[in-house]
Amino acid sequence: MSKPNVVIIGGGFGGLQCARSLSGTPTEVLLLDKNNYHLFTPLLYQVASSLLNPSDIAYPIRTVFRRTRNVRFMMAEVAGVNFKTKTVRLIDGTEKSYDYLVIAAGSETNFFGLESVGRMACGLKDLPEALALRNHILRCFEAAAQETSEELRQTYLTFIVVGGGPTGVEYAGALSELVRLVLAYDYPEIGLEKIRIILIEAMPELFPTFPSQLGHEARKRLERLGVTAQCNTKVQEVTDNLIKFSNGESIVARTLVWAAGVKPAGLASTLDAACSRSGRIEVDEFLRVRGQTHVFAIGDIASFTEGGREIPMIASPAIQEARQAAANIMRSIANQPLEPFHYRDPGMMATIGRNSAVVHIKNLSLKGFIGWIAWLFVHLYFLIGFRNRIAVLSGWAWNYLRYDRPIRLIARAGERD
Amino acid sequence: MSKPNVVIIGGGFGGLQCARSLSGTPTEVLLLDKNNYHLFTPLLYQVASSLLNPSDIAYPIRTVFRRTRNVRFMMAEVAGVNFKTKTVRLIDGTEKSYDYLVIAAGSETNFFGLESVGRMACGLKDLPEALALRNHILRCFEAAAQETSEELRQTYLTFIVVGGGPTGVEYAGALSELVRLVLAYDYPEIGLEKIRIILIEAMPELFPTFPSQLGHEARKRLERLGVTAQCNTKVQEVTDNLIKFSNGESIVARTLVWAAGVKPAGLASTLDAACSRSGRIEVDEFLRVRGQTHVFAIGDIASFTEGGREIPMIASPAIQEARQAAANIMRSIANQPLEPFHYRDPGMMATIGRNSAVVHIKNLSLKGFIGWIAWLFVHLYFLIGFRNRIAVLSGWAWNYLRYDRPIRLIARAGERD
Repeated sequence: MSKPNVVIIGGGFGGLQCARSLSGTPTEVLLLDKNNYHLFTPLLYQVASSLLNPSDIAYPIRTVFRRTRNVRFMMAEVAGVNFKTKTVRLIDGTEKSYDYLVIAAGSETNFFGLESVGRMACGLKDLPEALALRNHILRCFEAAAQETSEELRQTYLTFIVVGGGPTGVEYAGALSELVRLVLAYDYPEIGLEKIRIILIEAMPELFPTFPSQLGHEARKRLERLGVTAQCNTKVQEVTDNLIKFSNGESIVARTLVWAAGVKPAGLASTLDAACSRSGRIEVDEFLRVRGQTHVFAIGDIASFTEGGREIPMIASPAIQEARQAAANIMRSIANQPLEPFHYRDPGMMATIGRNSAVVHIKNLSLKGFIGWIAWLFVHLYFLIGFRNRIAVLSGWAWNYLRYDRPIRLIARAGERD
Repeated sequence: MSKPNVVIIGGGFGGLQCARSLSGTPTEVLLLDKNNYHLFTPLLYQVASSLLNPSDIAYPIRTVFRRTRNVRFMMAEVAGVNFKTKTVRLIDGTEKSYDYLVIAAGSETNFFGLESVGRMACGLKDLPEALALRNHILRCFEAAAQETSEELRQTYLTFIVVGGGPTGVEYAGALSELVRLVLAYDYPEIGLEKIRIILIEAMPELFPTFPSQLGHEARKRLERLGVTAQCNTKVQEVTDNLIKFSNGESIVARTLVWAAGVKPAGLASTLDAACSRSGRIEVDEFLRVRGQTHVFAIGDIASFTEGGREIPMIASPAIQEARQAAANIMRSIANQPLEPFHYRDPGMMATIGRNSAVVHIKNLSLKGFIGWIAWLFVHLYFLIGFRNRIAVLSGWAWNYLRYDRPIRLIARAGERD
């Protein structure tokens, strides 16, 4: 009897962990991703703020599975899935059949239907977005240095970051350090006092899904870095660099960083499967797509409900679900009853500039230097690859000792970085 | 009396050195480059072969002159120069006036009018070209892994490098190491014996401008790395991946790396100045553009003749000329007689894989391990920036100890890397 085929769609935290959990088992695993690398998204904002190189946080997926006999990788984009014929169709038209399927296609930047925002804003969800953002920020400084009109110059020096979750907070802090500690010295002709960084959050406090003292703490630390946090405010519309807010105010800026949320990958809506209101694929307690016995969905694209709420679209649940899905596939192959999934919330952590972080783990809250050290170790631990850990640690050490963010190359229009 | 204005066009080896030589003098220097970074082109082939990050060999020009009061940098592309009004016109239409002008706009890939080659080939002269090439090579392996036709697969695994000078020789060697030591393990489904790397040179031996034992030595070392060096051969035409050679042979390949030569930047031909047959701007013994008293040209764009021959389009003459041009500007300001330029040939060095290089300095030839160590030190010495030196040295150490070339991210079409 030949080994069962498992196809995994997506090489993010969920898909990669699932393939790892299945490595060495009597299965044949095919892992698909449109990129040839796994991206460590929690540090993406450090690429977008000139601190890290793309290669520091991206790792070739084939290299992960070099020594694994039963896992193959293919760089391919999935166009659709046919549950009846048990096949995955790639965009080049070829089909891959499966005995078991794991859908882990992840998520993308969500502009919540605001088209004018989508045209102007930079997302912060994948490597091209992060590089486009880095490039844009550096270009704004070059443009400001050359601009003679005081009014126009101010538009280049006004940076709006939308989203008071960890990504938005961390990026606003990192951007402030890039500007104050590095670019201020490269552009002495630009007065530091001209630069405005404004963080916008729709809810009444930063980190709205966490205890309010965390958001309060974050706001205090951001203000020390010169970032204005404006809560209870939404972006409504953008016309010609004029950004209009829900409170009636508006501001002219060239930069709108969008860290306000993500939505499930487009694949979800093409499937013959029920989706939750948020567009995520509904799964049962065993992580199977509802109505399917051989198809699992995990991570951001899957809607797993616990305590009446969908679990969040972040790395930890994806990794935990991946392990459970792999275990349930092995149980199904062995004709054993499946095990239900339970989410263990690992908490939240965010750095806000040097020596400073807020950390919330169960009932423990850390802040300041201790929180920052905890943040460093956790992120290094979860990075893949010895070299990437060294590279990231070296980058941080350089930044810490030299107050430098050295990756400051501007790619010209139409070029790759 | 206000200080004389010096405008320098180009932030390559020549322009950067000239600005450095003028720093601290009673002049006001404006350095212009279309990129915001100085690129250490001798290591570009290591970016194109997945060994180094772009940021390791590129350094922000503004950062070089942070502590220099009389040098300003502006990221701008030059559209033309008017010698009569003493102004430089930028592509955005603004004009910069000068008292002295230094033209150091460098060179670009030369396809020698072979249009069909220009459409297919990857150059290896600037960062976008190097990244496009890296990307292309990695894509070829993904495509080969997915290709079912044996014949088509071979086209993805055939790599033609044109140009038997240092760039072509070094890249062919680096490509071989990338393929044999790294990609062979990532793509076990591709047999190593299928891969062909062919280096094409028009003259009878590699390194045609150097003593013939060097070319002979290089060929021997390349052959050990599995690279076939084919001399006395030119590329004539390309149609649909079919590359036709002057000897009547042809080969189907997806990759054509063009390291066959460079030509002066387009700016040269727009000037009201005499150009040599190679298109370089003719200069007098003091490096002044012929007929101009306040305009100097240096580096690849300048045609300086010594011993009846134009000095080569490489870094060393550009740096030497830059120092002389800066000195002559200071002499001119002080109403002193100018000094003629004399070129001191520093020799040539090229690495060919691990532990192996050929070095030719005056009458001294080094090869093998000693040559390789010499190569390493010279290149580290000339790199700009302490961090870049550390980053490059770390990259080399990682490569040496782990046989790895880790920067293997594929950017999808239309994306920045």
